[in-house]
Amino acid sequence: MASPALGTSLIIRVETHNTPNAFGNLAAAIGDAGGGVSAVDTRTVGRTTTVRDVTITVPSDAVGTAVQSAIAAQPGARIISVSDSIFLAHLGGKIHVEPNFPVKTRADLSTVYSPGVARVALAVAADHSKAFQLTIKRNTVAVISDGTAVLGLGDIGPLGALPVMEGKCMLYKQFAGIDAFPITLDTKNVDEIVATCQRIAPVFGGIHLEDISSPRCFEIEERLIGALDIPVMHDDQHGTAIVILAAIINAAAVVGKRLEDMTIVLNGSGSAGTATIKMLLAAGVRDVIAVDREGAIDRNHTYDKPHWTWLANNTNRENKHGVLREVLKGADAFIGVSVPNILTGEDIKSMARDPIVFAMANPSPEIMPEVAAPYVAVMGTGRSDYPNQVNNLLAFPGIFRGALDVRARKISSRMKLAAARAIADIVGAERNAEYVVPSVFDSRVVDGVADAVRRAAIEEGLARREMLAADEEYAAATTVHS
Amino acid sequence: MASPALGTSLIIRVETHNTPNAFGNLAAAIGDAGGGVSAVDTRTVGRTTTVRDVTITVPSDAVGTAVQSAIAAQPGARIISVSDSIFLAHLGGKIHVEPNFPVKTRADLSTVYSPGVARVALAVAADHSKAFQLTIKRNTVAVISDGTAVLGLGDIGPLGALPVMEGKCMLYKQFAGIDAFPITLDTKNVDEIVATCQRIAPVFGGIHLEDISSPRCFEIEERLIGALDIPVMHDDQHGTAIVILAAIINAAAVVGKRLEDMTIVLNGSGSAGTATIKMLLAAGVRDVIAVDREGAIDRNHTYDKPHWTWLANNTNRENKHGVLREVLKGADAFIGVSVPNILTGEDIKSMARDPIVFAMANPSPEIMPEVAAPYVAVMGTGRSDYPNQVNNLLAFPGIFRGALDVRARKISSRMKLAAARAIADIVGAERNAEYVVPSVFDSRVVDGVADAVRRAAIEEGLARREMLAADEEYAAATTVHS
Repeated sequence: MASPALGTSLIIRVETHNTPNAFGNLAAAIGDAGGGVSAVDTRTVGRTTTVRDVTITVPSDAVGTAVQSAIAAQPGARIISVSDSIFLAHLGGKIHVEPNFPVKTRADLSTVYSPGVARVALAVAADHSKAFQLTIKRNTVAVISDGTAVLGLGDIGPLGALPVMEGKCMLYKQFAGIDAFPITLDTKNVDEIVATCQRIAPVFGGIHLEDISSPRCFEIEERLIGALDIPVMHDDQHGTAIVILAAIINAAAVVGKRLEDMTIVLNGSGSAGTATIKMLLAAGVRDVIAVDREGAIDRNHTYDKPHWTWLANNTNRENKHGVLREVLKGADAFIGVSVPNILTGEDIKSMARDPIVFAMANPSPEIMPEVAAPYVAVMGTGRSDYPNQVNNLLAFPGIFRGALDVRARKISSRMKLAAARAIADIVGAERNAEYVVPSVFDSRVVDGVADAVRRAAIEEGLARREMLAADEEYAAATTVHS
Repeated sequence: MASPALGTSLIIRVETHNTPNAFGNLAAAIGDAGGGVSAVDTRTVGRTTTVRDVTITVPSDAVGTAVQSAIAAQPGARIISVSDSIFLAHLGGKIHVEPNFPVKTRADLSTVYSPGVARVALAVAADHSKAFQLTIKRNTVAVISDGTAVLGLGDIGPLGALPVMEGKCMLYKQFAGIDAFPITLDTKNVDEIVATCQRIAPVFGGIHLEDISSPRCFEIEERLIGALDIPVMHDDQHGTAIVILAAIINAAAVVGKRLEDMTIVLNGSGSAGTATIKMLLAAGVRDVIAVDREGAIDRNHTYDKPHWTWLANNTNRENKHGVLREVLKGADAFIGVSVPNILTGEDIKSMARDPIVFAMANPSPEIMPEVAAPYVAVMGTGRSDYPNQVNNLLAFPGIFRGALDVRARKISSRMKLAAARAIADIVGAERNAEYVVPSVFDSRVVDGVADAVRRAAIEEGLARREMLAADEEYAAATTVHS
């Protein structure tokens, strides 16, 4: 499995002879190899040699290797060590567990453990709802993966997946104040995954499923939602779908079209694609055409995959058939969650007036923004280096924040729709072709989404409480006499 | 299930009329009911009434109820609310998850999540040992329970057990810097518990089993030790056994006896008792008699429980039979992990010279220290309000600290023996009849135990590394060129 082309910084400790312009020549060689020197820290200056830590930005592993070769080829230069800034950041893991208060005295010990804890344990055992007040269940989400579809890397197993899930847990705390803990599973069996999640569920207020391959992810999520009374959400499906819908809502407004009137072609009918289509339909879009490698999914074929059968029966109003290029003609919007570089400018030109294109293949989109630019009205990608980044970080922290706040039993379609509309509303009247989704660092996003999710859960009867958290928690330790 | 008699503080908000000596009378009534006023905070003083928060120490729930009745019976007094200090301490759970550094910029995001994390994920997938450097596996222990034998409370289920496991996680961090996370399981089936632990094991560097009922705990621990390459330890068995052995080592030295020459009677042949007997035998004791409800376990009977059959074949050198009182005659030491108040002073008097008694039944020991005092040479209990508290908090933090430090594959008998000797050595030459085990707050304990465990693991070939943690972790992000 090749490492994808991703930039990093290398810190190369290098020794050079104290000859005129030795470092100048070295820096030039690094530049010629494609590296950018961003910092130089001199470590030791000896009589004949100098040792420096040179921090070098490299756009890819290949350039990193070339830079090291270029340094080694310099007369008198010797590499002592090479450190990688990304790996340094991950050293020792990225999260830790902290006590909420110190345990330093005998009284502390008797409070948090035996004998004091016995009374709390009995209170929770007698009334399970008190677990939401007196334990970490209140604010804790499990980020669970079997490592079968990690980022774009495929099946890299539970240990390979762990750094990614830890990253997600960091984001949960940083963006939504949620205590998330990674669980990566040493099994790929659907029954075993479902059973394991059910058995560890008592500790958690919600379960975030991540990077589980399709079509297994559908069954796992569906069965867990049915079996558990806490919210379960597969982020790759719904996080993506929610943010795409938010982007489409604003893009439609920019070009002056109504969702009900639009024809939307979606390429890549896997888990994210199918979830996106369901969201679009729930939001009022009436004509969606799902496309995969063999072309549009239609009612002339029978499909092995149950979700394709569902798509055949619930999309493609005019039962169009043909390859992507053919069914894209006259469409109002294209959504790609598929593979790089499958569309040309001509294809976009064949769409209806003011085409909307969300090309989310990563790291290279279905069509590069530069290529699409002359023809599109609104364009978005999954990348952070172009406008309109569709990033599910806009969705999952606020969704689980809202769900935990009201102790929701599940995350319903209505709650997801509310989240999408809340994301779209952050942009609101300021929307334009290059601003249809907010920045992931826009602090209004999580609060807006959480509020919308709380309201939707309460309206739908899925909330187990409506009062403020602080009040009810105090009440758990207090008997009020009237 | 009755709440056990455990002390706490109540904060009672009470309104009294502004009549002469109203509060004095109230305080007297509280005292008469058995409560102790430890603080009075006046909240509001009105024209005719005053509201105060009165903090009252109560030794039991019954006294708490009596105190409230006494207050309510005072003329002009009205209880507004009653808060419980123990419950207040547990509100919202007792641990939380923290990112190791903030994620505030785009560069942070690209480092901890996509795209940067992809390279780390691939590195760990390619070399699983890197999970000990680049993920939380390095320092994280799962505290796992099925809630079937929680403290002395019995089977209170996975939600009831959660406050206890959270407490254990606090202790791990506070005492040994270990990131522990509670997993309470919604199953009592041995196969399911074993399978669940195996499946979630990738995230953890060790598994601490807690409060699982006997005899299921034997099989669960044994199967997990065989299946996993990380340390697995059932604390109720081995934590207790290790600390008892430490206490016996020092108690024997106090009375001038050698372990090899002693006859030790152990009452309560459940999981902790059986583990203690195995530790005693491993430490060189040659004559142990295991007793349970039906009397001494001997070779004249056949037993349904496999661990009793093992005890019959491996203890009771002289194959004595009879009830506890009978086999205790002439014994050098008594260890009780059974039920309250089953021994009399006469029983102790019947033992060999300088009897050693560790009576660990909780909250009331097999014989109260006051009753045993005239007859014993060394006495210990599980209680913190008498000298020589046998508390497994002396063992588990240092054991897992040592095991994690060297990435031990398991916790062997030799490692547990080393831990017991290290605990005994902290007391060392300062030992006397009232000081055979160190205080749980003695900061030398964890370091001493961890060091002993590390050495034993290395000597036995169970360590996966011997170099210093900081060096090797830096090496994971650094390629050293020579």
